[in-house]
Amino acid sequence: MSEKPAAPSPRVTVKRIPARGHYDRPTIDAILDEGLICHVGFSLDSQPFVIPTIYGRDGDRVYFHGSAASRMLRAIRGGIPVCLTVTLLDGLVLARSAFHHSMNYRSVVILGTAVEVVDREAKIAALKTISDRVIPGRWEEVREPNQSEVTATSVLTLPISEASAKLRTGGPIDDEEDYALPVWAGQLPFELEVQPPIADTRLPQSIGVPGYIANYRRSR
Amino acid sequence: MSEKPAAPSPRVTVKRIPARGHYDRPTIDAILDEGLICHVGFSLDSQPFVIPTIYGRDGDRVYFHGSAASRMLRAIRGGIPVCLTVTLLDGLVLARSAFHHSMNYRSVVILGTAVEVVDREAKIAALKTISDRVIPGRWEEVREPNQSEVTATSVLTLPISEASAKLRTGGPIDDEEDYALPVWAGQLPFELEVQPPIADTRLPQSIGVPGYIANYRRSR
Repeated sequence: MSEKPAAPSPRVTVKRIPARGHYDRPTIDAILDEGLICHVGFSLDSQPFVIPTIYGRDGDRVYFHGSAASRMLRAIRGGIPVCLTVTLLDGLVLARSAFHHSMNYRSVVILGTAVEVVDREAKIAALKTISDRVIPGRWEEVREPNQSEVTATSVLTLPISEASAKLRTGGPIDDEEDYALPVWAGQLPFELEVQPPIADTRLPQSIGVPGYIANYRRSR
Repeated sequence: MSEKPAAPSPRVTVKRIPARGHYDRPTIDAILDEGLICHVGFSLDSQPFVIPTIYGRDGDRVYFHGSAASRMLRAIRGGIPVCLTVTLLDGLVLARSAFHHSMNYRSVVILGTAVEVVDREAKIAALKTISDRVIPGRWEEVREPNQSEVTATSVLTLPISEASAKLRTGGPIDDEEDYALPVWAGQLPFELEVQPPIADTRLPQSIGVPGYIANYRRSR
């Protein structure tokens, strides 16, 4: 995990504020593993589309639900160029000037060619990866997908080979002369708060909330 | 606000689970006004890029920071085809089968041609729109952008003319025979929790936290 990554490709090199760019896999993987949804971009007739979807990382690959892109994928044999972006918003950064306002965030951008997972066993494994990443422990408790459900689900996979992370942390950085302004400045942090679970109306009272739900949190 | 919208274009019509699609502006605007970041997609040499950025709606337009897309924009006179997507994640939906797991979410997709805001006064007004949407009350307190800051900032604008919202709410919907399974099912709702503000280390103690920060929340 501490290996030096190869030099990033120019396409994923962070150009605006280069100090915020990171290219090591531990940084990239931690963001991918904390996120719950990604935004997948693809183009159709020169029109880009950006679709939010569920995903999960397994080693050097990301798997995601491919319903949105699947019609297009069928038209392009061999794969489709995509950009998969995961963004975690950590808070607002309030500076003394409008210009230096910012947000604290951690994001990952992965470029590459997404291909459909066709093999039945591989597709089930990919769905388990996604489930395990979103709700660890869930897959073992629920009914597994049957043949028609596996067929009805499309899963795409993308290698984490051309990727970068971009992070901003900490307080505002103002122009020196602005520090004298009588304006409050600082950070307003955000957290994803997990609310108490709501049982399905048809759930028998005898079935209690499992620990992986009662104690659910996204670990940073 | 209660006017009937025109029929949605085929490009933004929700095809997978059509009942989740909404095309009325009050629904679209409420999602746009609650969100803090959007994901903007554009293509360059057939490669899509999806970049998270700050934005704000003013009437029938969305304004967003254009740093990421601006190099490309300069190359394409007259505008750039984009997709601007805003997603609010409201929770996890736990069904009795893996297949019927889902998330509750509210998202908006806007397609169109983004153009750069060039006029100096229009650009400042656009920046104020973004500021007002993210932190109402902030713009009036801070130092406004000076000439070089306005020049250094690029702002794009996109009309809300080809747009759709997609929403999922409520608990799981299982196959009838699965309701007998002894598995907990329900929802795990999420909220964006605003943490206590953190004052900048160089802030004089005499400057208190303004009300719009102390009471900050995203209204649903």
